[in-house]
Amino acid sequence: MSHIAIVGAGLIGRAWAFVFARSGFDVRVWDRDAQVLQRLDADIEAMIQQTAPFGQAGPDPQATASRIRAAATLEEALSGADLVQESGPEVIDIKRELFARLDAVADASTVLASSSSALLASSFAAGLPGAARCLVGHPVNPPHLVPVVEISPAPFTSPEVTARARDIYARAGQVPVMMKREIDGFVLNRLQAVVLAESLRLIEQGYVDVQGLDDTIRHGLGRRWAFMGPMETINLNAPGGAADYLGRYGQMMAGLARTSARDEAFTSTGAEMVAAAFAGLSTPETVRARQNWRDTELAALARHLGDRAAQSHTQE
Amino acid sequence: MSHIAIVGAGLIGRAWAFVFARSGFDVRVWDRDAQVLQRLDADIEAMIQQTAPFGQAGPDPQATASRIRAAATLEEALSGADLVQESGPEVIDIKRELFARLDAVADASTVLASSSSALLASSFAAGLPGAARCLVGHPVNPPHLVPVVEISPAPFTSPEVTARARDIYARAGQVPVMMKREIDGFVLNRLQAVVLAESLRLIEQGYVDVQGLDDTIRHGLGRRWAFMGPMETINLNAPGGAADYLGRYGQMMAGLARTSARDEAFTSTGAEMVAAAFAGLSTPETVRARQNWRDTELAALARHLGDRAAQSHTQE
Repeated sequence: MSHIAIVGAGLIGRAWAFVFARSGFDVRVWDRDAQVLQRLDADIEAMIQQTAPFGQAGPDPQATASRIRAAATLEEALSGADLVQESGPEVIDIKRELFARLDAVADASTVLASSSSALLASSFAAGLPGAARCLVGHPVNPPHLVPVVEISPAPFTSPEVTARARDIYARAGQVPVMMKREIDGFVLNRLQAVVLAESLRLIEQGYVDVQGLDDTIRHGLGRRWAFMGPMETINLNAPGGAADYLGRYGQMMAGLARTSARDEAFTSTGAEMVAAAFAGLSTPETVRARQNWRDTELAALARHLGDRAAQSHTQE
Repeated sequence: MSHIAIVGAGLIGRAWAFVFARSGFDVRVWDRDAQVLQRLDADIEAMIQQTAPFGQAGPDPQATASRIRAAATLEEALSGADLVQESGPEVIDIKRELFARLDAVADASTVLASSSSALLASSFAAGLPGAARCLVGHPVNPPHLVPVVEISPAPFTSPEVTARARDIYARAGQVPVMMKREIDGFVLNRLQAVVLAESLRLIEQGYVDVQGLDDTIRHGLGRRWAFMGPMETINLNAPGGAADYLGRYGQMMAGLARTSARDEAFTSTGAEMVAAAFAGLSTPETVRARQNWRDTELAALARHLGDRAAQSHTQE
């Protein structure tokens, strides 16, 4: 039976444990903070309560829970693991030290993957004896409700390891996206960054308010992007497909991009305007309650999209 | 009873007719091409067939159809209309001439709205006797399945007219977004343009392939953006809300935006790479079949999101 080790059991780490366990993997979880491990069972149970009504806790939710076990030591967690999903702090020195330790402890055949969103594998795994088995597997928060995983190998990562990671994530029901070269922010955060920059600029310069900006995505672009990407979107917006679209509208779009905002849009004024729009929703308690709403909606959407995909598959 | 006039009954115009009719408005449609008007009933019937199974054709789909009538003349279509939704070609000379005619024919109290995505009201309505009643009400294609409408008044548009347009779109079940100043591309196409630019760059420079790019949105960012905007998204990504998020991650995001792509990303090589990824899906027939799939998925998603919103409202 395949076995996954989770190192670091914060929000991301324990959601990873849930992802793998609901797909049939045995999962061992380690965290240097023993209190985090003591809360693990209760945290997993809360995830089951939230997602099982939408069919997102695996075919047998209690079996999902039973496949997750806290490990007393890092060595116990790693022994025999196919893949380690490291989900520790985003601090380069900590990440380097932790990967050196993982590389020293893990079996030779174990893939070492980091959930890092900001650090590249080449920055924290260079020079390790097992550098070739290290890469980034960047999830979106929360990974059990948003399936994409950006797989970003360093130049020194073995292609065989990269392929193995992809296979494991796919077996876990995630959607692996293969980065062919490293770049800061990978794909997802680069796309998020350009949207944030242009959004903040339009808000700060008084073109639209925060609610209007959010409505434009939520009731506009986001309706299509929930089930097809921006490239397929343009492929359907001209009779001859994407090339036809770019021929007809490419110069117009390029003109808009030419005057788009970049880093200068991240001003304190813009931040204050956004914060003001969420004035009643900016304490840890209110944010947590709203995150809970978000996660319930993500679970409901995952079921909806899963049902639609199954139906479309049946009809083919 | 309120009455809407649709001028130009192409893809966008007839979808507008459907939007207003299913919400109880009487709709009169005029097109300078008589053949387009002859097909109108069949086109509306096709929209009903596709959307009624998902509850998106109004409480009584046949009543929706019966509220839409082709008008023999522009004068007949406009007589007594609360709002004219102009959906003609995006050519400045045609738009100017058409608005002059609309302004000459329409009752003094009628709002004149254009579906224009590329032309600003200040460019085609300036100098008209009724310039103050002209604005843009920019929909997304197809408006009966994607509810946002960007309302962009010119500096000379009366605030009272802008408020009236917002009220009419809201009564029609759309989500009006108020632009407070004109800008090329409004909000939606500016956000789409920055995503396209960065996407094309990442593809052309070999970081990710077209499928991986689309998966990153579809199975990543798009999951959240289907029911909340990018500003609420960041408000939930830090315990203290958006200000906390921008304090923690703003510099990282600004760094990504600093190196983002602009108009230089719209190259013929990039276009060819995208076109190659949709090689089997780039003829009018295959694109039309896939648009049909898209519209069915949009209708299913509209029902899902409507059901979720109704449930959340009940629970409050």
